[in-house]
Amino acid sequence: MGRVTQRRRVTRMMRDQETGEVTTRSRADTLAVEEPLEIRLGGESFTVTMRTPGHDFELAAGFLVSEGIVRSPEELRGLRYCAGTDEQGNQTYNVLDADLDPLLAPMRTSVSERRNVVTTSACGICGTTSIDEVEKTLPPAPDAGPQLSISAETLLQLPDTLRESQKVFSKTGGVHAAGLFDGEGNLLCLREDVGRHNAVDKVVGWALTEGRLPLTGTVLQVSGRASFELVQKAALAGIEMLSAVGAPSSLAADLAERSGLTLAGFSRGRSVNLYTHEHRISAEDPSLQQAAGR
Amino acid sequence: MGRVTQRRRVTRMMRDQETGEVTTRSRADTLAVEEPLEIRLGGESFTVTMRTPGHDFELAAGFLVSEGIVRSPEELRGLRYCAGTDEQGNQTYNVLDADLDPLLAPMRTSVSERRNVVTTSACGICGTTSIDEVEKTLPPAPDAGPQLSISAETLLQLPDTLRESQKVFSKTGGVHAAGLFDGEGNLLCLREDVGRHNAVDKVVGWALTEGRLPLTGTVLQVSGRASFELVQKAALAGIEMLSAVGAPSSLAADLAERSGLTLAGFSRGRSVNLYTHEHRISAEDPSLQQAAGR
Repeated sequence: MGRVTQRRRVTRMMRDQETGEVTTRSRADTLAVEEPLEIRLGGESFTVTMRTPGHDFELAAGFLVSEGIVRSPEELRGLRYCAGTDEQGNQTYNVLDADLDPLLAPMRTSVSERRNVVTTSACGICGTTSIDEVEKTLPPAPDAGPQLSISAETLLQLPDTLRESQKVFSKTGGVHAAGLFDGEGNLLCLREDVGRHNAVDKVVGWALTEGRLPLTGTVLQVSGRASFELVQKAALAGIEMLSAVGAPSSLAADLAERSGLTLAGFSRGRSVNLYTHEHRISAEDPSLQQAAGR
Repeated sequence: MGRVTQRRRVTRMMRDQETGEVTTRSRADTLAVEEPLEIRLGGESFTVTMRTPGHDFELAAGFLVSEGIVRSPEELRGLRYCAGTDEQGNQTYNVLDADLDPLLAPMRTSVSERRNVVTTSACGICGTTSIDEVEKTLPPAPDAGPQLSISAETLLQLPDTLRESQKVFSKTGGVHAAGLFDGEGNLLCLREDVGRHNAVDKVVGWALTEGRLPLTGTVLQVSGRASFELVQKAALAGIEMLSAVGAPSSLAADLAERSGLTLAGFSRGRSVNLYTHEHRISAEDPSLQQAAGR
């Protein structure tokens, strides 16, 4: 279960900038672990995702929320490691079975079973075998509950806070992070994974098990790009704002626009781009108020 | 078809480093386009991948190679846009039908149909519903054909060449690239996409249609991380070396070791890490020869 990093011998080649000479040395390096996790529903195979081990229950729970199957903790009666033994007969902790309450989520479960046949995946999107299926999973606009308000200064600080809190990244340089913050910039939950979508699912799964869904009043800061599937996962969980260190795609911006999510990209400490619903950013600066009021 | 970028109004917020004051301005920004592409086999839905439009035929062809369904150009009789019209009845170019030769690839097609039922995806891995399925897709070790030999200096130059040739990235900052090179550092094919796996599939699809498979004697330089699925795709196409700007995962290194692929990571111009099969790197430097000979 503590298998998030792996030591490996590596040959490092370096070029001297002045002489151009290449020297090499052998040393131990730390890699982020990537292993398949099979998620089953009531004993039936549902999906396999490549993930960094750790917080597997949260990952499975969040994945079920992102797929629209589970909406409250009561609908997920339990999760347990099953099957999955290696050649020595030891538990691999790579197969999880989810026990759903058939009374609470019967229709959604049957929908999921149908989708399962035509495929669904941890990417939230690829694997889905028809474009109609993709459109169907678009989330509704968030309820008019408690509203997020965050200052520009706080927003610009989030990537630094995220990076400083990333334990696995500091060792491997090879994992993504998703951090959930409140409007004051307080970190509520941070998860890391080799897959961006898994890191977000782990955060959403944490929120489900903590009884915090929907996540109104929160902003999700991610270390990579903002793709369609991340906007979809955030919106489905009721998160009001997604902020990415990298670029958003066109479809991510389109979906954020339609679903009422505030989307920020290229958040790099000194500057950040706002693509949609910028009214959630509070600022003394009158030029922003003007921009938001347009 | 030329829809690889999209213009969008964005609010840019900047913090003055000395005064801490935040100013904003509204400007037009260029985003990388992300749209779903549905791939059908003989009219039957097979998968949907989120991709940057362009080189769609190559993407579909490469995906079929990466899935082990198509191995030669003759097995893929044709590809055409079908169905997929928008509200105005215009062709969306988002649905592709592949016409496979049932005589040349009958068993693999039936395997693919079975896998399709339990799911398969553009990630090459996620969506697969059982861990056994993942293991089954492991590629065989490459044939002992023409061997790649590349100097350390040439290898270190590849990321710069890749970046300089990236047209969409220079506009959007938001796409991945995969570039195929020979041992002399000559760029054979470059493809960009919001999805790392798609960029690689486009390169492999190019190779299929050009009659260049298997890609012995080549190295694939990618802009992001080296994950399990990228190693798998490269090895299946006969590529001898995968070099990544980012980190490899543990499973990527394991698979590269087993399949005979040379894996490089953190390739940053001045230095690079070699994880497996470093015998393909030629160097005057005696310390490397020693390391390779171990």
